[in-house]
Amino acid sequence: MHFLSERRPDPGLVERAFTLADIPGFLWMPASAKTWAPLPLVLLAHPGGLGPMYPRLLARARATADLGFSAVTIELPSNGDRPRIPAIEQARAAVRETVTAGGLPGDDVIDSFILPLVDLAVPEWQAVLDALLELPEFGGPVGYSGGVIAIGTRLANVESRVVAAGLFAGSYIPRSIVEEARHVTIPLHVLLQWDDEGNDRQRALELFDAFGSAEKTLQANLGGHTGVPSFAGEDAARFFFRHLKYSEA
Amino acid sequence: MHFLSERRPDPGLVERAFTLADIPGFLWMPASAKTWAPLPLVLLAHPGGLGPMYPRLLARARATADLGFSAVTIELPSNGDRPRIPAIEQARAAVRETVTAGGLPGDDVIDSFILPLVDLAVPEWQAVLDALLELPEFGGPVGYSGGVIAIGTRLANVESRVVAAGLFAGSYIPRSIVEEARHVTIPLHVLLQWDDEGNDRQRALELFDAFGSAEKTLQANLGGHTGVPSFAGEDAARFFFRHLKYSEA
Repeated sequence: MHFLSERRPDPGLVERAFTLADIPGFLWMPASAKTWAPLPLVLLAHPGGLGPMYPRLLARARATADLGFSAVTIELPSNGDRPRIPAIEQARAAVRETVTAGGLPGDDVIDSFILPLVDLAVPEWQAVLDALLELPEFGGPVGYSGGVIAIGTRLANVESRVVAAGLFAGSYIPRSIVEEARHVTIPLHVLLQWDDEGNDRQRALELFDAFGSAEKTLQANLGGHTGVPSFAGEDAARFFFRHLKYSEA
Repeated sequence: MHFLSERRPDPGLVERAFTLADIPGFLWMPASAKTWAPLPLVLLAHPGGLGPMYPRLLARARATADLGFSAVTIELPSNGDRPRIPAIEQARAAVRETVTAGGLPGDDVIDSFILPLVDLAVPEWQAVLDALLELPEFGGPVGYSGGVIAIGTRLANVESRVVAAGLFAGSYIPRSIVEEARHVTIPLHVLLQWDDEGNDRQRALELFDAFGSAEKTLQANLGGHTGVPSFAGEDAARFFFRHLKYSEA
């Protein structure tokens, strides 16, 4: 992990830009953090495009720092400034074509778009954990927050350092990911926008039903993809606080 | 409204037992309440049986008082110590027979059980509001909290003094109530127990979809009918606090 710059977007927050191999990312810590007190860490996931996503990621990093936690994000494969992967771009174009024509993409198109992203992104999040958890500032526990929900589902399944996930049911869900969800056992908080234009509500409900976790909450709110109400963010923050705060032991 | 007794279940809470006509009920206020400062009021609804429900109602009254609000509950028609209504009892027996045989009651049975309860209970809640809101201690705004969800839906539709409802999707939902829900416009917070044994998850989701409200949240948690997790109660409390606290004006 190579740190490029450090700044304070506001007095309470330290932001470091970094690259890990060729992956750009941002790391945020509460300005009050002491280096001798390792922090819980939240992986701030997003649908790709660090540039346009930056304002929303910064707001989520602020909310995470308010809990006393650090936060990290990286660019998705084949997004933002990263090199394009032809198979993913072809599948993305097929999705767009269907949506532009007013349709919902079929399972094959969704699989060819989402599954390669999952296969590439999950080891990258794990590499971020490898790099950060050897630094003295970060002790875990680790949470995953946001979309792409298929990536969060796979990561929750294969990465034991992730102990809680707040997922956003706002992207396409391959059928095989519903099967993988049955093996997920960590606590989950799933946000669903009830009127999300481009997504399949029934598949999202099916995914929620499939998760094997003993604690799982679905919070559905009226509104479209970007209309998540502010109180929903606060409820998600409380979920992470319950599961990532240090025990008294 | 005839007050029968007053006691303090704990130092922070005043409880008054009352009857309104022949309907028994309880009224709770924060012990710190001043008579010159009228309080918001939460109608604590329940599935019937004040005796067995009392411990849970008291816990909900405490949580409501912690918000600075008063709370009131009454017995449902044909429940607890109230006289039995033959048509309701026949329908209840038919529901039990179906459930005991391992089935789900059909729409006709549900209608004959729930709709008479709704028709009787809604004017009784309105009579409680008439009686309380003329007292100096209670100024509104008023919220409805809990099951029976069909009663809450009708009341939200016809009673303009109720400005927010936290509903529990834990009882049978007649089809006509789904239609009435389209005319409900107040903010809603709907709790759904994902694995509620006796209820129809799909009908509950259909009801949530039908509500006409511009702000509506569905919170579904893993677990059976009585397994609502404590954090879900806290989220519901925050919903009421947002909508019933006095504005600064």
